[in-house]
Amino acid sequence: MADKTNRLKARLPRGFADRGAPEIAATRRMTDAIRDVYERYGFEPVETPAIEYTDALGKFLPDQDRPNEGVFSFQDDDEQWLSLRYDLTAPLARYVAENFDALPKPYRSYRFGWVFRNEKPGPGRFRQFMQFDADTVGSGVMAADAEMCMMAADTMEALGIPRGSYVVKVNNRKVLDGVLEAIGLGGEAGAARRLTVLRAIDKLDRLGPEGVRQLLGEGRKDESGDFTKGAGLDTGSIDRVLAFVGSKGADANATLANLATVVAGSAQGEAGVDELRQISALTTSSAYADDRVLIDPSVVRGLEYYTGPVYEVELLLETKDEKDRPVRFGSVGGGGRYDGLVSRFRGEPVPATGFSIGVSRLQAALTMIGKLAGQSAPGPVVVTVFDRARTADYQKMVSALRGAGIRAELYLGNPKNFGNQLKYADKRGSPCVVIQGGDEKAKGEVQIKDLILGAEIAGLSKDRDDYLKKQAEAQFAIPEDRLVEAVRELLVRRGVSWS
Amino acid sequence: MADKTNRLKARLPRGFADRGAPEIAATRRMTDAIRDVYERYGFEPVETPAIEYTDALGKFLPDQDRPNEGVFSFQDDDEQWLSLRYDLTAPLARYVAENFDALPKPYRSYRFGWVFRNEKPGPGRFRQFMQFDADTVGSGVMAADAEMCMMAADTMEALGIPRGSYVVKVNNRKVLDGVLEAIGLGGEAGAARRLTVLRAIDKLDRLGPEGVRQLLGEGRKDESGDFTKGAGLDTGSIDRVLAFVGSKGADANATLANLATVVAGSAQGEAGVDELRQISALTTSSAYADDRVLIDPSVVRGLEYYTGPVYEVELLLETKDEKDRPVRFGSVGGGGRYDGLVSRFRGEPVPATGFSIGVSRLQAALTMIGKLAGQSAPGPVVVTVFDRARTADYQKMVSALRGAGIRAELYLGNPKNFGNQLKYADKRGSPCVVIQGGDEKAKGEVQIKDLILGAEIAGLSKDRDDYLKKQAEAQFAIPEDRLVEAVRELLVRRGVSWS
Repeated sequence: MADKTNRLKARLPRGFADRGAPEIAATRRMTDAIRDVYERYGFEPVETPAIEYTDALGKFLPDQDRPNEGVFSFQDDDEQWLSLRYDLTAPLARYVAENFDALPKPYRSYRFGWVFRNEKPGPGRFRQFMQFDADTVGSGVMAADAEMCMMAADTMEALGIPRGSYVVKVNNRKVLDGVLEAIGLGGEAGAARRLTVLRAIDKLDRLGPEGVRQLLGEGRKDESGDFTKGAGLDTGSIDRVLAFVGSKGADANATLANLATVVAGSAQGEAGVDELRQISALTTSSAYADDRVLIDPSVVRGLEYYTGPVYEVELLLETKDEKDRPVRFGSVGGGGRYDGLVSRFRGEPVPATGFSIGVSRLQAALTMIGKLAGQSAPGPVVVTVFDRARTADYQKMVSALRGAGIRAELYLGNPKNFGNQLKYADKRGSPCVVIQGGDEKAKGEVQIKDLILGAEIAGLSKDRDDYLKKQAEAQFAIPEDRLVEAVRELLVRRGVSWS
Repeated sequence: MADKTNRLKARLPRGFADRGAPEIAATRRMTDAIRDVYERYGFEPVETPAIEYTDALGKFLPDQDRPNEGVFSFQDDDEQWLSLRYDLTAPLARYVAENFDALPKPYRSYRFGWVFRNEKPGPGRFRQFMQFDADTVGSGVMAADAEMCMMAADTMEALGIPRGSYVVKVNNRKVLDGVLEAIGLGGEAGAARRLTVLRAIDKLDRLGPEGVRQLLGEGRKDESGDFTKGAGLDTGSIDRVLAFVGSKGADANATLANLATVVAGSAQGEAGVDELRQISALTTSSAYADDRVLIDPSVVRGLEYYTGPVYEVELLLETKDEKDRPVRFGSVGGGGRYDGLVSRFRGEPVPATGFSIGVSRLQAALTMIGKLAGQSAPGPVVVTVFDRARTADYQKMVSALRGAGIRAELYLGNPKNFGNQLKYADKRGSPCVVIQGGDEKAKGEVQIKDLILGAEIAGLSKDRDDYLKKQAEAQFAIPEDRLVEAVRELLVRRGVSWS
């Protein structure tokens, strides 16, 4: 017996999780469905490793030789810094740059896998989670972005989310830049105040237009009395920013007309509105524009990172927040145009646009609405061990069942207590067990105990004929050489299928 | 234009690799086939994360607070050491110990995924590679080990390796320990010399019995004149070790009889032979013993690590070594009984046995014998852009094709040079392209260009009637509203299928 005080503790680091059979099966069904849609769109798979040079990921701290603390990093034996990938976009940019000449261009590709963030974990926030990305590199046309949005919509429906229960919202970084330029916040000088404006807009959902107005102006005092300094814009500028955020009209054309007014005078802004107009025309001609892909200037997530169109997939399904109030489930994926990422390696402009699904988060949403309800597979047939000395005979039965494609197991625990063998079969969700004691052996028979019917009749009143009839049906003898056939018949009778 | 001197270099760290579509598809087919067999055996999936506490993996250097250099390690913000998993067995032991009471026992499970080794990379040696493991925890009976061996055999056949082209070899750690005990190398005192003996045996394939005899005795001078000090055994002991290694007889019974002689007098050795005898009985009754699962005392790989039976799957297929000499492909997986691994956490004995397939290595073997021959999927239908202003119309055609389940793409590059669009379609392996210029539009038609037939007739002599007839067949006009139907007919005609 090991010394208990020296015993190792079996535990996982915070922010990491194990996954059991139902969760693995659900992820598999999801990724199969997503892959199916992406391949229909002509995207092909490509995978990169989990480890990259830190500089290739763009994850050194500004002006320092030390990696960003948000990524897991370690030094190689030649002192170079390596990091675990924190998303699938930066590695793709490295891959495309490294294999540029060999790839078809434009290059459509997809990939899914684990990414790692060295961040503070919390409820529902993990340090390892799965993403599913699609990217088109080498095309600057808006058809590439429109395609991403339509593909996102098709993916939601392939996953069983009904039309109307999700929406793909599209905005454009250039439109916002145009607004900021128009109110005098363009160029390097306006950078800090631009960030304050972006952060204020991002609070629209929570604070409403009046709160955002305060944050764009002098500042805002919250309920606790804390004061947040504002961006210090004048009233005209504030009105213009709020007009931008609130420019969603009754339909795409109305929204585009509103936006055109807001950016009037900014070449950059007009270019952005024109890009949205093109996306709108493309999604309209393919009939995605009415209810699935919507121009929505309130989307600001990712506006700092992207260079043109940005898109976000939102589930309109309701869930409860920590105070049991109904809230929308919200974003399960997003993306946009990132024309700078491959260019870092190439020294020439390489346009690119991409879309990323948070698989772990979407899986939580689908589980919530019952689209991934615990379809756990039935357990295997268990061949029990009545006489330990005859294990080889029981093994032979198991092999015969497996040879016929039937999931089957030999009981491998201590066979002494036969009740434990039946309990094990129950815990495994077995449809039936196979028993052969000395009497059966002498008669060349085996007993089959039907656990599904057994569970059913356990609830019936014992004085009814039906019970007795069913009890006879629930355990019966058959000639040994009919084992495979009889088990197969039982599986059909009880509707058990593993595929 | 970015400054070229500051440009980042796009490259992967040594020992890591990207994977393209054919390789990903091949891995998928392999893991699907393996999973299928494992589930038929009643094993259920479970997954653990890529990162664990270093101590849970047992990967601290002896008597030091520093992780083994062979694993990628980094400190968490609370100073605790974390490591990337270097196999799938140590994390499973942690998982089982952590969830012991909730799991059915015996607990059969499987998992596959990437593991990481911080070792010197070389040709065919990677620092990230894939393993596929199955383990039975909580059963000490030999039926659990016999099952692993039969499952390994079934897996090889499910992957298309014919019977006779692979073998599952079984040995037992206790038999070797018995031999060592019998020649006076038991206990702590003999540890160093035991290791020398193990290393000598491991060279049997390369040096033959005479070379091993020298290494077991005084030592051996190799061709270059370098001298390796031997284990210093006396002649009787050397004979006994060589008798052990060479004890494989004409059949299992002969081998077992030979082994019984070799270990005579050692209780440990006799227990090992008895375990092999049980495995032999079980594999014989299920008809795996003649040609698939063989008792073979020459297997020493892993003998240091395991506590009872060890097994190894070898491909008997020939390949060439670096000097173009034919060699057997060798081991693609192995495993054994490791009764100590879960016990480290539990402070009580927890028997376990497991089997691991090196997916990356096996994939190389299967590719070599053509079982994974480049079945790259056909490319998508490409809808070309003849008139940029009409992109929305072309997008609509693409959406219609996709809506009918046909893989289709809009050409997203610069449409100016129409020849580039056809080159792109060729590079993508497209079965056909769709074209609609102004003339076709006026007539309400589209042109379909059959690239498969086109490639075929490109080689035909141009003065034959057949050529002209086929040329007409290779590009033809259809009414616009028959697009989906006509493309589908073409795909059927050319035998194109994506599933």
